[in-house]
Amino acid sequence: MRPAVVALGGGHGLSAALSALRLMTDRITAVVTVADDGGSSGRLREEMGVLPPGDLRMALAALCDDSDWGRTWRDLMQHRFATDGPLDHHSVGNLLIVALWELLGDTVDGLDLVGRLLGARGRVLPMASVPLCIEADVRTAQGRCEVVRGQTHVAVTPHRIEHLRLHPADPPACPEAVAAVREADWVVLGPGSWYTSVLPHLLVPQLRAALVETPARIVVVLNLTPDNETAGMRAVDHLEVLRAHAPELALHAVVADPGSVDDVGELADLCAAMGCRLLVRQVRRGDQSAVHDPLRLAAALRDVVEDYLGDVGTRAGRAVGSRDSDG
Amino acid sequence: MRPAVVALGGGHGLSAALSALRLMTDRITAVVTVADDGGSSGRLREEMGVLPPGDLRMALAALCDDSDWGRTWRDLMQHRFATDGPLDHHSVGNLLIVALWELLGDTVDGLDLVGRLLGARGRVLPMASVPLCIEADVRTAQGRCEVVRGQTHVAVTPHRIEHLRLHPADPPACPEAVAAVREADWVVLGPGSWYTSVLPHLLVPQLRAALVETPARIVVVLNLTPDNETAGMRAVDHLEVLRAHAPELALHAVVADPGSVDDVGELADLCAAMGCRLLVRQVRRGDQSAVHDPLRLAAALRDVVEDYLGDVGTRAGRAVGSRDSDG
Repeated sequence: MRPAVVALGGGHGLSAALSALRLMTDRITAVVTVADDGGSSGRLREEMGVLPPGDLRMALAALCDDSDWGRTWRDLMQHRFATDGPLDHHSVGNLLIVALWELLGDTVDGLDLVGRLLGARGRVLPMASVPLCIEADVRTAQGRCEVVRGQTHVAVTPHRIEHLRLHPADPPACPEAVAAVREADWVVLGPGSWYTSVLPHLLVPQLRAALVETPARIVVVLNLTPDNETAGMRAVDHLEVLRAHAPELALHAVVADPGSVDDVGELADLCAAMGCRLLVRQVRRGDQSAVHDPLRLAAALRDVVEDYLGDVGTRAGRAVGSRDSDG
Repeated sequence: MRPAVVALGGGHGLSAALSALRLMTDRITAVVTVADDGGSSGRLREEMGVLPPGDLRMALAALCDDSDWGRTWRDLMQHRFATDGPLDHHSVGNLLIVALWELLGDTVDGLDLVGRLLGARGRVLPMASVPLCIEADVRTAQGRCEVVRGQTHVAVTPHRIEHLRLHPADPPACPEAVAAVREADWVVLGPGSWYTSVLPHLLVPQLRAALVETPARIVVVLNLTPDNETAGMRAVDHLEVLRAHAPELALHAVVADPGSVDDVGELADLCAAMGCRLLVRQVRRGDQSAVHDPLRLAAALRDVVEDYLGDVGTRAGRAVGSRDSDG
């Protein structure tokens, strides 16, 4: 049986992970941040008090069936109105998801139905059952500490982010997402906006507990370039921040593109100290643009899995061998 | 093979006809008015310059597959947002249809795709390829002649409607709708708002020519009660208005509910003068509400068809008989 994989993230980063994972397995669960407060999602959240649907929609789109039917409905989901009126820039998929939530009265049922419409290769779930607000302590260039509230503001803060919180601080996790993490073979964290798409999952207590306790092996996929949130941060800094926010989380492997690591030795040392493997593989597109290539990322993730299975095989072989020599 | 039927109309009246016809055949084409300028449709038409989608949506909903899947997507199409913001009262199906038109760049392709989503038992087409404006000459109680513009205004005018026009006066008919009329076995006109849903089809020149020239037999289903547009009008008046707007149109049969005809003899005389049959059948619901019952209307329409087939059979029999006697 192909491995059960849970991908944690949001936005384009999660889409990149899902586009790779769908080449490896169809047992995929995407667990998506629900703290967006900008754009079409932010307006829907404001007008209707719903979970921001945008990142959920993008994840569903990334998993759509590779057929005329799947691609057409994916394109419709991703279509945005462009008018001079109140519908301007609303995403059709966002409206569809929100309408299904109202009609069915259940977040997960609504997402599952969109998944059926798209013939999605897996399932998409929110990380929490309520809309969240991200809040960050930031340090200004003058050394002053300030608080920035809201995902859109945190994402564009010119200051260094030091600490991240959620409001509410103890949101109810989506039970199906927690169950998926506990039953997974692999969990993939990243790529994506480090503070606003990747780390928030670790701040939902039930989800964090599941991530710490699951027998699944956790793989971190590092970003190709820093964005505004992580300006000036190196690969090792990304890992350090992750460790600082969830020190008890055991990582199995880190995947990094060689063009995105300035000091491989230092990163390897940190990985060794954290007890995890480092795989440096080209995972970006051939044109050297800062975009993950689904095929290369899939190959790198397959290397991670095969590496592990090889290890298990070797240990099993040794065990059998030693029993044999005992006999 | 089951008969190919084209149903002309709009709104709830057309839905009633389609709900009945789907019990008789799956070779159904609904040809729908596109002059609505109120509600969600009117706002979309105003904001985006598109055909008003509402009546098209309702017709598609009436034809949905009778399965969990079909009914769920039908319910979503018919769902309306209820907010304090700009999405209030927008129909989800209207937004979906308009988005598909933008995405696919073709009105009919978009409607066909919604039909596939719903597993629709037939096809839904607009009567014209451009949004239309209905304009009426009305006579006030004081005998003054006035002009009322726009479907929503015509529908609620307190004055007697004397004449109806479209703007533009010679709109391009939907070619697929014209072809469907020309290839049909039966055409059903009504029930529905007489001036704003039923008569407008006769004012689209290409569609009118097709209706006059088609070998299909035309059945008129009369309304159960007058509405604002037809206040004070009797069953015979409805037929007279139809004849006045399209004197060259040959009708095959008229279906009327006994509770909606005050003078059956007069109506029968008019039908005879127009060369068509009159079928007086209970087609309303058993609770005597002014709503067509799909089963009873289907039974009445089947009577019309069987009546005709019986006639054809008799004629064919006579023809054979006379040839025999010649031999």
